[in-house]
Amino acid sequence: MSLAENFPIWDKLTKEQQDRISQVTTLNKIKKGTVIHNGSMDCLGMLLIRSGQLRAYILSEEGREITIYRLFEHDVCLLTASCVMPNIQFEIIIEAEKDSEVWVIPACLYKNLMEESLPLSNYSNDLISSHFSDLMFLMEQIMWKSFDKRLAAFLLEESRLDETNNLKITHEKIANHMGTAREVVTRMLRYFQNEGMVKLTRGAVEITDPKAMECLAES
Amino acid sequence: MSLAENFPIWDKLTKEQQDRISQVTTLNKIKKGTVIHNGSMDCLGMLLIRSGQLRAYILSEEGREITIYRLFEHDVCLLTASCVMPNIQFEIIIEAEKDSEVWVIPACLYKNLMEESLPLSNYSNDLISSHFSDLMFLMEQIMWKSFDKRLAAFLLEESRLDETNNLKITHEKIANHMGTAREVVTRMLRYFQNEGMVKLTRGAVEITDPKAMECLAES
Repeated sequence: MSLAENFPIWDKLTKEQQDRISQVTTLNKIKKGTVIHNGSMDCLGMLLIRSGQLRAYILSEEGREITIYRLFEHDVCLLTASCVMPNIQFEIIIEAEKDSEVWVIPACLYKNLMEESLPLSNYSNDLISSHFSDLMFLMEQIMWKSFDKRLAAFLLEESRLDETNNLKITHEKIANHMGTAREVVTRMLRYFQNEGMVKLTRGAVEITDPKAMECLAES
Repeated sequence: MSLAENFPIWDKLTKEQQDRISQVTTLNKIKKGTVIHNGSMDCLGMLLIRSGQLRAYILSEEGREITIYRLFEHDVCLLTASCVMPNIQFEIIIEAEKDSEVWVIPACLYKNLMEESLPLSNYSNDLISSHFSDLMFLMEQIMWKSFDKRLAAFLLEESRLDETNNLKITHEKIANHMGTAREVVTRMLRYFQNEGMVKLTRGAVEITDPKAMECLAES
């Protein structure tokens, strides 16, 4: 798949703008586990995901993490262009969760295009609004949903993404996604095991009763 | 103060666009306590605050509230134009905390202008990014900051806004701002009272040691 096919409003740009983008945009192959953006120190530009899976998270002073959102094939990310968006003042970190291919449109070019292309500016509005909605959804989950339901929903999503009921994931890693301590995750997983919903082994969580788990997640 | 003086990018609009805005924009006097926007049912448009104080909050299914941000003189709000921003999919409620004067630029006009004015589109990007940053800041507070520090910071902000150390506010109302239960607020305020930082009376919280409270909020 080409850059043009992956760029949502490609047809609304002029030929000259398309050429400028093509000339400087690079396709980066990113190994699983690589951090490609680290807070406001970096100003990469706009990311277009060709393949793979990335996660955006924030970090507390004590080193606790929470996943803000994930990026998949066809997704576009603008929060990695914080120097273009002066009002974005927070430290977001983006790392590859699987081997990924990502186009990077450099921030300086993106900034110039924003100042001349109305379709691109409007598209950026849509993107940021969409990031905003995701964040609001996450906050509602954190504020109003009890931890057992959030954990059930998280395990089901992991299972869907990895296409298996046998998740190779540590309690530490789950805690990092959910912004909590490992002990809290372990305690809840043991409760799930007692209820017959999961089976715990070293470095893995097997979902043994997906239906019961769905009921819990949606309750 | 006139609409033109309050509208941040007024000078970057054409004379014809300025006229269209002037013709349909109304200045609304809003009584304290009035809800002017109620989730996605409403699509008011862009709000420009001439005077007063409003708060934007979300509501859980059980009726718990949490304040997302506040709007003051000169502030502009776009989340009240959710029909213009198709990716904004959450239910935000906006109510006046003091008697306020608010210009409302109708959503349909705003939508048309967005499609023709690059400066307005870029300005909207700045606004939404700024709302996004506020939300991220709030989430970081909720995730990483202990409740005693958040409560101290909240009381100090109220004191600054109302220009008094003697806050006329109920524990219930504080709980609604902070997204927690009244009992949690009461328990912490009693702890503050034992520490000599506040004095509690019916319907009021007096900050008796602002310095100690600032130390706590910033620790």
